[in-house]
Amino acid sequence: MANLKEIAELIGGRLQGNPACEIIGIQALNKANCDEIAFVAKEKESLDLSPIKAGALIVAADSRMHYPNLVYVADPRLAFAKLLEFFHPQQPFCTGIDASASISEKARIANHVRIGPFSYVGQNSQIGENTEIHAGVIIYRDVKIGRDCLIYSRVVIRENVEIGDRVIIHPGAVIGADGFGFGRTSEGAAVKVPQVGKVIIGTGCEIGANTCIDRSTIEETILAENVKLDNLVQIGHNVRIGKNTAISAQTGISGSTEIGAQVVMGGQVGVADHIHIADGVMVAAKSGVSGSIKKKMIVAGIPDQEIGAWRKSVVLLRNLGAWKEKLRQLEIKIKKAEEK
Amino acid sequence: MANLKEIAELIGGRLQGNPACEIIGIQALNKANCDEIAFVAKEKESLDLSPIKAGALIVAADSRMHYPNLVYVADPRLAFAKLLEFFHPQQPFCTGIDASASISEKARIANHVRIGPFSYVGQNSQIGENTEIHAGVIIYRDVKIGRDCLIYSRVVIRENVEIGDRVIIHPGAVIGADGFGFGRTSEGAAVKVPQVGKVIIGTGCEIGANTCIDRSTIEETILAENVKLDNLVQIGHNVRIGKNTAISAQTGISGSTEIGAQVVMGGQVGVADHIHIADGVMVAAKSGVSGSIKKKMIVAGIPDQEIGAWRKSVVLLRNLGAWKEKLRQLEIKIKKAEEK
Amino acid sequence: MANLKEIAELIGGRLQGNPACEIIGIQALNKANCDEIAFVAKEKESLDLSPIKAGALIVAADSRMHYPNLVYVADPRLAFAKLLEFFHPQQPFCTGIDASASISEKARIANHVRIGPFSYVGQNSQIGENTEIHAGVIIYRDVKIGRDCLIYSRVVIRENVEIGDRVIIHPGAVIGADGFGFGRTSEGAAVKVPQVGKVIIGTGCEIGANTCIDRSTIEETILAENVKLDNLVQIGHNVRIGKNTAISAQTGISGSTEIGAQVVMGGQVGVADHIHIADGVMVAAKSGVSGSIKKKMIVAGIPDQEIGAWRKSVVLLRNLGAWKEKLRQLEIKIKKAEEK
Repeated sequence: MANLKEIAELIGGRLQGNPACEIIGIQALNKANCDEIAFVAKEKESLDLSPIKAGALIVAADSRMHYPNLVYVADPRLAFAKLLEFFHPQQPFCTGIDASASISEKARIANHVRIGPFSYVGQNSQIGENTEIHAGVIIYRDVKIGRDCLIYSRVVIRENVEIGDRVIIHPGAVIGADGFGFGRTSEGAAVKVPQVGKVIIGTGCEIGANTCIDRSTIEETILAENVKLDNLVQIGHNVRIGKNTAISAQTGISGSTEIGAQVVMGGQVGVADHIHIADGVMVAAKSGVSGSIKKKMIVAGIPDQEIGAWRKSVVLLRNLGAWKEKLRQLEIKIKKAEEK
Repeated sequence: MANLKEIAELIGGRLQGNPACEIIGIQALNKANCDEIAFVAKEKESLDLSPIKAGALIVAADSRMHYPNLVYVADPRLAFAKLLEFFHPQQPFCTGIDASASISEKARIANHVRIGPFSYVGQNSQIGENTEIHAGVIIYRDVKIGRDCLIYSRVVIRENVEIGDRVIIHPGAVIGADGFGFGRTSEGAAVKVPQVGKVIIGTGCEIGANTCIDRSTIEETILAENVKLDNLVQIGHNVRIGKNTAISAQTGISGSTEIGAQVVMGGQVGVADHIHIADGVMVAAKSGVSGSIKKKMIVAGIPDQEIGAWRKSVVLLRNLGAWKEKLRQLEIKIKKAEEK
Repeated sequence: MANLKEIAELIGGRLQGNPACEIIGIQALNKANCDEIAFVAKEKESLDLSPIKAGALIVAADSRMHYPNLVYVADPRLAFAKLLEFFHPQQPFCTGIDASASISEKARIANHVRIGPFSYVGQNSQIGENTEIHAGVIIYRDVKIGRDCLIYSRVVIRENVEIGDRVIIHPGAVIGADGFGFGRTSEGAAVKVPQVGKVIIGTGCEIGANTCIDRSTIEETILAENVKLDNLVQIGHNVRIGKNTAISAQTGISGSTEIGAQVVMGGQVGVADHIHIADGVMVAAKSGVSGSIKKKMIVAGIPDQEIGAWRKSVVLLRNLGAWKEKLRQLEIKIKKAEEK
């Protein structure tokens, strides 16, 4: 609970209204009551506010909305995120190390680490200060995990993986499984190529539920700082991803591909192997990227095109029936003309 | 084991043949022996029965098939399902609560609940009567699970999730992981928006192996009664799915989308965020649904079209080469005509 | 550590250079130091070797490269795989059976089996000699696993599954979950059809992380010898896959489909149900295979076409805008001609 004066200070905003107004929580705009605060995204400013009952609204600094209590901030969404943390602080999963966890005597566990039931940490693995490991997490040998990480239940981290600070890994993710690398005998049988490379995950990364990041033959699969992966994503062996890149659910990146910084990918995208995607590229959902993209642009389609060209293609394709008819009419006319 | 008279009664069918014929099991049509029963789907009635050795066949009420022992029922597939349950009753995974399970003292476990080894139930969580929880299942705090549920091994259920009665969750599914919600700083770094909403799963739902259903920022992700999800499906935050809807493997539904009742989706479909799909819509496998679908229809393609239009597009596209040639011929003719 | 003479013998190669040269490890070509060996794939022979510092190179038998130490072999990639095994032998996860594992008294565990912490083996299940089962693996009742298998952490194997020798299953895979089989009541509610069939996995298969292989109603889902599945793959109920077939990440095979031997599929492919794909077929990434493919060929696209036809379609589609303009010009000319 906090009053509006305190809330405005917390989010670095300017208050217009009653500083003493008490707020007990945060809510979606259309559900908030008079003791709750909500936010209005910049693009939703034209909304009809008459049915809104929220005690206060967080709005953009240049908002022209009229409402009894308003808190003006540079970015309403970020302010909202901060208030969510304030009203719903992350609760520790457990205190200390659960008696049922299995920790190698040769593991190095820093202070204030919490480890839940049925979790395992192998020999020579290191867990940094204040990191929390939930239940049923399996950490192989020679793994390094930084401080302030949050490893949800049932994550598997294979040997030699390195994880930075403040990394969040959601349930069921698998980090460092063998890459899909095979030779072929002359009879065509696949022969496994051992995968002994590393996976390195930078500070501030977040890995979605049931997502897989593979280790490579001998080189490194690398996520730079602050990369965000959604659920059920596949990152092939030897892939490198630049900082602040965000990849949506069910997207797959094939082996040895390099993805720049600040890249944004929609869901169910497929990216071919051994290509390079420039910084700042955006890839629409369900696209198939088959070759390198050398400069910042937005692409879509299978295979991918610049999004404007792709949109034109879609429209042209939908008009094909009409054209076919036009073509047929022209043929008839010309045939008639010829017969004259 | 049962005789045909008993079997006909069990499935509410009409027997033509020998009521004393003993049946020891159920089999696929082409594999069944004389002491086994099989079924013939309505659309397969024209099949040659001469190689069939089954002791009896379950057929549609209006079937014209000739065979020594026939059991006529309204729906052969449903009758077959009932007989499968009769001949292969679900065996309990374990009895009572395994000594190695870790159950919070503050959890409320109803009567006749079975919990397997290495499963964990957090504080204030409730498990309803006769629910079975297999091995390695992690249930966080404040979870409500109804009665007669079947939670397979290695499922993770995060805090505050609510699950109705008779729900089946297959191995590896993750219910209530954080939605993929981020703000951006002015420098472009992604900033996590805390996800503190609920996931609510209705009575009779079934969730496939390694499927993920995300929690949202503050609102609710809801599956109504009897929704069926296949394996490796992604349900984004704040999605709502109407009753009896069935979604095939590897399909993904983006955040805040609302899907009606009785919807059927093929595999690897992608559905955009913040859209609405009407009751009864069918979506072909691999489609990309980019906008709302306002009435019951069948769609296919990326982006989606009404399926008839899509089929025409596919045919037109395949004939493009021929048209191009026609167009070229017309150009030549016209050029010649002009030169005259 | 080994000298080049020993290495040449190990990989059955012909050495040109200094047999006493000591090699301590294997590396990527551009990173190898003078005490490391690297390989040059046949297609990379034209590479500039001047910056290369490797102590020796493994090259194809007919290579024309010039370098101080060369080992000529039939297949550099396979020789490299062998050396990787030599320099990085698989280390045992654990010795014997961990005290925290839960093994049914009625399970049959052969000699030299290793089972890690928090793993469970149900009644009547058999584990063959020298098989290694990591942590948190759940093996239901009546499962048969052969010898020399490697089952990574958090794998789930449901009842009655049969697994051959030398099978590798990566973390999080789910073998034998229920197929997605439903009937419909006359009101449209889905009614579960019990799935009591088997899954059979042949000798030498490898199953990727978080991949799912479903059991069928009463028949068998079968992977023949040496099938290789990447991560997050979905194999529907009653599917059969021929030997040496390799399937990349996030691909899904629908129920009752039969896939031949030596088939190669890219990632994110979808294959329809109840179809047949011939031996040796190759399917490009992201394709949607909607009907049977009767002979060895390469296909691509949604729906799939022979890859040459597909490539032409893509080019034709990209030129549609130009054609539309041509068509418009012709119309104008003809209209003018008519007006004369």
